[in-house]
Amino acid sequence: MLTEHEIEIRVRYQESDPMGFLHHTCYFIYFEMGRTELLRAAGGNYRQMEAEGQRVVVVDAECRYHRPARYDDWLRLRTAIVRTTPAKIEHRYELFRGEEKLATGRVVLAVVNAAGKVQPVPEWMQLQEK
Amino acid sequence: MLTEHEIEIRVRYQESDPMGFLHHTCYFIYFEMGRTELLRAAGGNYRQMEAEGQRVVVVDAECRYHRPARYDDWLRLRTAIVRTTPAKIEHRYELFRGEEKLATGRVVLAVVNAAGKVQPVPEWMQLQEK
Amino acid sequence: MLTEHEIEIRVRYQESDPMGFLHHTCYFIYFEMGRTELLRAAGGNYRQMEAEGQRVVVVDAECRYHRPARYDDWLRLRTAIVRTTPAKIEHRYELFRGEEKLATGRVVLAVVNAAGKVQPVPEWMQLQEK
Amino acid sequence: MLTEHEIEIRVRYQESDPMGFLHHTCYFIYFEMGRTELLRAAGGNYRQMEAEGQRVVVVDAECRYHRPARYDDWLRLRTAIVRTTPAKIEHRYELFRGEEKLATGRVVLAVVNAAGKVQPVPEWMQLQEK
Repeated sequence: MLTEHEIEIRVRYQESDPMGFLHHTCYFIYFEMGRTELLRAAGGNYRQMEAEGQRVVVVDAECRYHRPARYDDWLRLRTAIVRTTPAKIEHRYELFRGEEKLATGRVVLAVVNAAGKVQPVPEWMQLQEK
Repeated sequence: MLTEHEIEIRVRYQESDPMGFLHHTCYFIYFEMGRTELLRAAGGNYRQMEAEGQRVVVVDAECRYHRPARYDDWLRLRTAIVRTTPAKIEHRYELFRGEEKLATGRVVLAVVNAAGKVQPVPEWMQLQEK
Repeated sequence: MLTEHEIEIRVRYQESDPMGFLHHTCYFIYFEMGRTELLRAAGGNYRQMEAEGQRVVVVDAECRYHRPARYDDWLRLRTAIVRTTPAKIEHRYELFRGEEKLATGRVVLAVVNAAGKVQPVPEWMQLQEK
Repeated sequence: MLTEHEIEIRVRYQESDPMGFLHHTCYFIYFEMGRTELLRAAGGNYRQMEAEGQRVVVVDAECRYHRPARYDDWLRLRTAIVRTTPAKIEHRYELFRGEEKLATGRVVLAVVNAAGKVQPVPEWMQLQEK
């Protein structure tokens, strides 16, 4: 499976705070977009997974903010799968404005069924040994 | 059924825009809170309605903004049911900071079932003739 | 000045509600994106206007919801300036999924200075007589 | 200075995702509310700090999600200052539904001036040696 992907994002006015900065919570929204598009680029689809009763939940999320993004900035987000276990998927995120790195993130996901019970990560979502 | 109710709301930092104002979209979030709490005060519960397969959807929403609310303001929202028909419920909203009126809203709701088909508004939600 | 513009938008997971629908408040966020991009396509820039002390505030906003948008839908938003007066600018919005119209909006803006005093709408933002 | 504080929060419909869960990004919004109210309870005020040119920025944020919060849940958030250095303030957050712990968070803040330059954390915000 494809393990790395980039998207571009325009910072919305509504996402900007009284300092004129992208509010720190919005970085996690961008990370969610990044992994959705990585999955799509890999041939998968979260909406379809949900329709089939598989739900992906966040179990750990972290972001380190190096420099502020601002309203109307045009950003580039790099998403990579860095680790999979039978139960979890870990992504790493790097957000850039031009060549300047603004933030680094890490989100760990688990797959659960509609009843909330943890499921094995589907094999096709697992990182392959080289 | 109770037809009018008031709640108090603190403007969050995350809801504030680069002008330091409550972002205009957040007024509609407050209106949704207002009608949720009016319904609760009247003995009803949206979560339970949804669990029973009844869904309340917005068909029309409007807000007129008189004066800006700001980050950290302590506001008072008055919600009133002003009209019900067999198919729709209309609420009116007034948002205040102290005695100053900041905004006036109007939201029209319809009830649909899980398949999206419009349902009659439950009798207990109808305005009663006096 | 250019008076009509279209953008495309992917519905984010974070914007979707427990019914799986795009939350009704997010339509207004999309409208704001629409007018930002119309202005950019016309050679203007909101960020620069703000930096120069001109602020654009919403004085009236309305949306009529015809059919729900859903998580992961790929939408098309058409934004048009329909009326300008010395003090206000009115945009009209139409949101589509394919050929299906999902919502129709209308937002009226005013320009204020940093002190909140209403300013004349800059001439270059005025609709021209034909 | 007061170093611990609790607030109660009702999960909004708009904050809930297609799984019916509080979206994972909203926990960070709650954390921001928690530290705002801790500061207020301690006699301080973020809005006033900003008006005086001091800005508080997030440099690191993490949340571990133990169990999902749901739409309309009534939650309790405990915020504590756990560490201060000359340049940073670290808060810890615990989110509860009744006695059940739903999430644990950690956010590190820095104080910057209007030009973005890091400032010493004001002495009154420092944890005191016992």
